[in-house]
Amino acid sequence: MANVVRLGIAGLGTVAQGVLNILQHNHAIILARSGVDLRVTRVASRAAKRDVDLLGATFSTQLDTLYNSDDVDIVVELIGGETTARDLIEASLAANKPVVTANKAVVANFGNQLLASNQHVALKFEAAVAGAIPILQAIQQGLVANRFEHVVGIINGTCNYILTAMQQSGTAFDVALSAAQELGYAEADPTFDVEGIDAAHKLAILLALAYDTQFNFDDIYIEGISKISPADIIYAQELGYCIKHVGIARRSAGSDDDNDGVIEARVHPVLLPEHQLLANVNDVANAILIKSDAAGHTLFSGPGAGGAATASAVLSDVVNVAQDLLRGGEGPTTQNRAPVTIVPIAQVRSPHYLRIPTQDQPGVFAAVAQALSNHEISIEAAIQKQPSSVDEIVDIVILTGIATDAAIQAALGEVQQLPQMAGEIARIRVETLE
Amino acid sequence: MANVVRLGIAGLGTVAQGVLNILQHNHAIILARSGVDLRVTRVASRAAKRDVDLLGATFSTQLDTLYNSDDVDIVVELIGGETTARDLIEASLAANKPVVTANKAVVANFGNQLLASNQHVALKFEAAVAGAIPILQAIQQGLVANRFEHVVGIINGTCNYILTAMQQSGTAFDVALSAAQELGYAEADPTFDVEGIDAAHKLAILLALAYDTQFNFDDIYIEGISKISPADIIYAQELGYCIKHVGIARRSAGSDDDNDGVIEARVHPVLLPEHQLLANVNDVANAILIKSDAAGHTLFSGPGAGGAATASAVLSDVVNVAQDLLRGGEGPTTQNRAPVTIVPIAQVRSPHYLRIPTQDQPGVFAAVAQALSNHEISIEAAIQKQPSSVDEIVDIVILTGIATDAAIQAALGEVQQLPQMAGEIARIRVETLE
Repeated sequence: MANVVRLGIAGLGTVAQGVLNILQHNHAIILARSGVDLRVTRVASRAAKRDVDLLGATFSTQLDTLYNSDDVDIVVELIGGETTARDLIEASLAANKPVVTANKAVVANFGNQLLASNQHVALKFEAAVAGAIPILQAIQQGLVANRFEHVVGIINGTCNYILTAMQQSGTAFDVALSAAQELGYAEADPTFDVEGIDAAHKLAILLALAYDTQFNFDDIYIEGISKISPADIIYAQELGYCIKHVGIARRSAGSDDDNDGVIEARVHPVLLPEHQLLANVNDVANAILIKSDAAGHTLFSGPGAGGAATASAVLSDVVNVAQDLLRGGEGPTTQNRAPVTIVPIAQVRSPHYLRIPTQDQPGVFAAVAQALSNHEISIEAAIQKQPSSVDEIVDIVILTGIATDAAIQAALGEVQQLPQMAGEIARIRVETLE
Repeated sequence: MANVVRLGIAGLGTVAQGVLNILQHNHAIILARSGVDLRVTRVASRAAKRDVDLLGATFSTQLDTLYNSDDVDIVVELIGGETTARDLIEASLAANKPVVTANKAVVANFGNQLLASNQHVALKFEAAVAGAIPILQAIQQGLVANRFEHVVGIINGTCNYILTAMQQSGTAFDVALSAAQELGYAEADPTFDVEGIDAAHKLAILLALAYDTQFNFDDIYIEGISKISPADIIYAQELGYCIKHVGIARRSAGSDDDNDGVIEARVHPVLLPEHQLLANVNDVANAILIKSDAAGHTLFSGPGAGGAATASAVLSDVVNVAQDLLRGGEGPTTQNRAPVTIVPIAQVRSPHYLRIPTQDQPGVFAAVAQALSNHEISIEAAIQKQPSSVDEIVDIVILTGIATDAAIQAALGEVQQLPQMAGEIARIRVETLE
């Protein structure tokens, strides 16, 4: 009995059921591996009790039973949503109960306050980023000795599924989205996923841990994938690239050598070189590529969602916290998280892919090239298809050299004024991952 | 000063220099992230002191100064070799000093005794497997709640570099090996790497941690890559596969549901489906793919060697041990590692790739098919090239269904007796990774 640690679980949805299911089947494995004898003593959910084996735990519809009870050592918050979850986490920490949560929105939006006001009680959230992949542990422990150059993650499975389907079968965004919805990979209202908000929540967390800083959700630049066309995917392939939706945190090229320098934080589609491992992470899988000063390029891939996969990450945190509880004593205290300056997107520098639909008239490529040149943007590669009929619209496709977003915006403003323009310009940033 | 933990480093080679270099540059990062203030108080190496900044540490040619001194909290063993390193680890643990080592040979060969006789003093060896990749932490912490179906790793960078070169430029093994030697990716005597011994050391460690069992180096089946021909690589590509050298640990299909059931443990070349992420891990990179019951397929990739990358993993262990030291108290004790039964290779079941060089005579394919059929081996796919001239030798290439190694051996024994045989048969196991 000396190694017993008692859990109070909030929620009874798919992740909570996954936790109960794992504990039912793998309790002995966890004990053998970690020395921790996990018991679920309480489950609380404001919805009525479902037909789930609670492993002998007491059920209540009152969440406060979790943090007001002496028979709970760790509160596991799996109710989702924001307000109630945040209140539960806050009350549990205040009651000196360590908390494990899978709630990325709460951590991204309220993590600064929650962590700052409860420094001596653990709050862990491995499951909030990239599901089963133990990426936060990798950043905080496995790569603890490293300064991070960049963290680039495919961190939304819905976007990755849609882009993979578009790439592999040439379908349009709407068609791929419908397929994702039918398979349960996208919500009825997909905005949260396809417009990048979910990815930004996760990036805010990755950024805070990788750069030892506060959570900066409000400062993250966010773009989704709804404007990606099949033509862009085909042109990208011709150029040797793959289109993925990623979150990027990066020490800015202009920043000084301090780790708390200036950081880029942005979520948007990118062209990745097709030979890069990250470009080959397909379907609903997630992956995070980290470039560090000592460890070089490391990549972590796996399922980013699902009850069992998320529960795996939740229990990893639970075991860590439980081991510390059993060990007793006060761990070393870390410094408060300092704020960091996020580079405005206008100043972010990268190569760009541009697709410019024009009427097929002499001089149009020269005019586009002149507009780019006016803003000191070089052309690294270009594709101009021969029109198959008279009066056809022709796509001018260009890979630019490295330029700021502001310069690209200004140049495209000029291009848009050209009389030969025949549609909306597509522009996607390019990440070489070097 | 409350958070100071003092290191005694044994060795002054590239990894030790990497550790000193990281501590020189990233000391503040490590402190901010972990709360641990690491100081190197002693360095000992039996070779004379090199021109390296020891960060104020006392140098000695006597290794016993590390574990006999009161000013060392953790001994970091980086001298390599087996006997001296093992003695140092043993003496340090006996002196109640936790040890961090990068020495895979010592852990694979002597881990059972070292861990069994020192259960209350930490012995950590993250750097012993796959360099910078925090794979042991992933198994023990990030995926702690999972039962592992299989662990398949590209865990020898030399082999991966050679096979990648053979695939990308069509060179023969000898040529690719020479190139690897020129680049410093292979030793002058490459046997240890290209014949799979190094990979087997690492697999023994992965297996012990993933299956909560003892180290089983002596029972691991080992095959290297020196017999892989450019023809095999080309045929594999035609069939949609990539040839990689891997270590595999797997719960045997025949084993019962207990985690300590019967395990496969083998190191050899395999054909991997080319769309699998693991098949796209190239050059000197390492990667480990884990299939778990809850977390599904997770993959961890990064540099498998190099002073800085290995030092990154060493310091990750150091920080973990240091945090426990600062916390004080006794952690939960885990069970003793139980022995496990390793399946004899003859009983291991998998599909096979076969390349059978024959004279181009009527009936030869039928005779080969008959020999396979005699041992209930099905043919899933076959390639038979038309000869470009009379009397040419023709390769019959076959992908078999799943069969035991014993059945394949017996069938190939019959094939070898056919009068039309014109050379040595190549056979490589196929891993679908499903």
